[in-house]
Amino acid sequence: MKIVALAGGVGGAKLADGLVQLLSPQDLTVVVNTGDDFEHFGLYISPDLDTVCYTLAGLLNPETGWGRRTETFHALENVKKLGGPDWFHLGDQDLATHLERTRRLQEGQALSQVTRDFCQAWGVWHTVLPMSDQPVRTIVDTMEYGELAFQEYFVHQKCKPKVKGFRFAGVESAKPAPGVLEAIEKADAVVICPSNPWVSIDPILAVAGIWSGLSAKRIVAVSPIIGGQTVKGPAAKMYAELGIQPSALAVAEHYRGLLSGFVLDRVDAELAPKVQAADIQILVTDALMSTQTDRRRLAQDVLNLIQTL
Amino acid sequence: MKIVALAGGVGGAKLADGLVQLLSPQDLTVVVNTGDDFEHFGLYISPDLDTVCYTLAGLLNPETGWGRRTETFHALENVKKLGGPDWFHLGDQDLATHLERTRRLQEGQALSQVTRDFCQAWGVWHTVLPMSDQPVRTIVDTMEYGELAFQEYFVHQKCKPKVKGFRFAGVESAKPAPGVLEAIEKADAVVICPSNPWVSIDPILAVAGIWSGLSAKRIVAVSPIIGGQTVKGPAAKMYAELGIQPSALAVAEHYRGLLSGFVLDRVDAELAPKVQAADIQILVTDALMSTQTDRRRLAQDVLNLIQTL
Repeated sequence: MKIVALAGGVGGAKLADGLVQLLSPQDLTVVVNTGDDFEHFGLYISPDLDTVCYTLAGLLNPETGWGRRTETFHALENVKKLGGPDWFHLGDQDLATHLERTRRLQEGQALSQVTRDFCQAWGVWHTVLPMSDQPVRTIVDTMEYGELAFQEYFVHQKCKPKVKGFRFAGVESAKPAPGVLEAIEKADAVVICPSNPWVSIDPILAVAGIWSGLSAKRIVAVSPIIGGQTVKGPAAKMYAELGIQPSALAVAEHYRGLLSGFVLDRVDAELAPKVQAADIQILVTDALMSTQTDRRRLAQDVLNLIQTL
Repeated sequence: MKIVALAGGVGGAKLADGLVQLLSPQDLTVVVNTGDDFEHFGLYISPDLDTVCYTLAGLLNPETGWGRRTETFHALENVKKLGGPDWFHLGDQDLATHLERTRRLQEGQALSQVTRDFCQAWGVWHTVLPMSDQPVRTIVDTMEYGELAFQEYFVHQKCKPKVKGFRFAGVESAKPAPGVLEAIEKADAVVICPSNPWVSIDPILAVAGIWSGLSAKRIVAVSPIIGGQTVKGPAAKMYAELGIQPSALAVAEHYRGLLSGFVLDRVDAELAPKVQAADIQILVTDALMSTQTDRRRLAQDVLNLIQTL
């Protein structure tokens, strides 16, 4: 079974890691949000790509959900001594990724090519693709500050400002990265990972050609909202601030028109009939991925659901 | 006595450090070569400025003569794993300097302003100025490869290519950094530190206004060539390749027209009469700075010589 997974950061990376344990490299392509990308200290930083690749490579810090395990912060500590900004936590090993990515992009290499080379160096054999090689920047419109660049909202302001809406600057001229549409076309199904629908999955769906490429496919989404809350990140808070009751049902509504299957947690079992009414195949299971085994089991559940569609 | 010191990297930094021990902050300005500056991984790197500032701050690695003491290289080790270039040795603490400098320059701050702020953060109270806020790039013309950017020649090729000449790209439109000409004007004397005449001091002298600003001043140079050899760096090799016998005499000839005093090592005492013939006051002393005490003693010798001029 050939699968394309759409992923943002932590939650998406975990399910992608589960799928990697079940599918051979030629059968899985992970398409990653780059709307979070930004430049900092002159370096090109791709937080979601790095979280996905570090996770698949076994390099991610499991304590924080970002950055590298057994990391040091000597550079950042010294930036702070110089009065520079230390709100974005750049570890020393992690810096290498940004330094070398920046160097290669400035040489004219495409982000997808750099990502492929890095995956090879890290021993990641399944295909990881940025959604686009062209820059797309998620802008968060907030009550308090107006429009904020994503990392400014997400990391610097710690998601505290109230959200009014989102836009993806540059998306109108962005093309899917080489391989994205081809992978979708060949896929038996597409998995929308339990990532933030507003700022992790919507940017991917907004890239020209991706939505229409998905239209003929079996698509299964896994709810990132469990019991009305997100495991990590501001998705539930965003739903509430936009006037929508945060729930697995709200996530299913979010993707309405795309979904043929939907996975929600046992704590949300009561919502299943409401989603099912919308002619979507439902799987109620343990959607929380606390352990490595959970990732594999949930991935297996998702593949099982796909086979019933 | 108000002094301006012209300096490149290691040798210049050592004598500047000696002068710092003898002169109060308002009486010493160190003007530093920026012809070595370059961009690497998207970061703006100023090797001579950093060597001088780290030395004066007590942060320099005394073993290597570059970079920070008690340094780690976690970023660079990981760049190497990604297949990136590791010929320029970027330590993790040192990276902070380049990251924050790059961030501030991109914000529109001038290099001289960034340097002043960094000196303050590092507890360096004497004034350190880049020769110019505009980019000047030393290009080394070589037999083997034609023109090489300075760091390409100096670090990557380890000074192995044979030198045919030098040029300082951009120097025609570079202005002395704010404070340089003012410091020279107020100075009782200018000290040309024992730095490479070709690629550390000549770029400073080539910035419009600096040479003419020096013309009315008492100028003392300290030979970086001792017994026909350089303590560190390729100056002697450069002289030889350009067809000039490398010696303290050659250095004095190099600065002819500028000098009123010249300091050479005891091993070169026999050269003193030849230099003296050129109507320059000579001091023969121990010009090698192996210890912290040597720096102070040589600086005192230089100040004593200046008082006899």
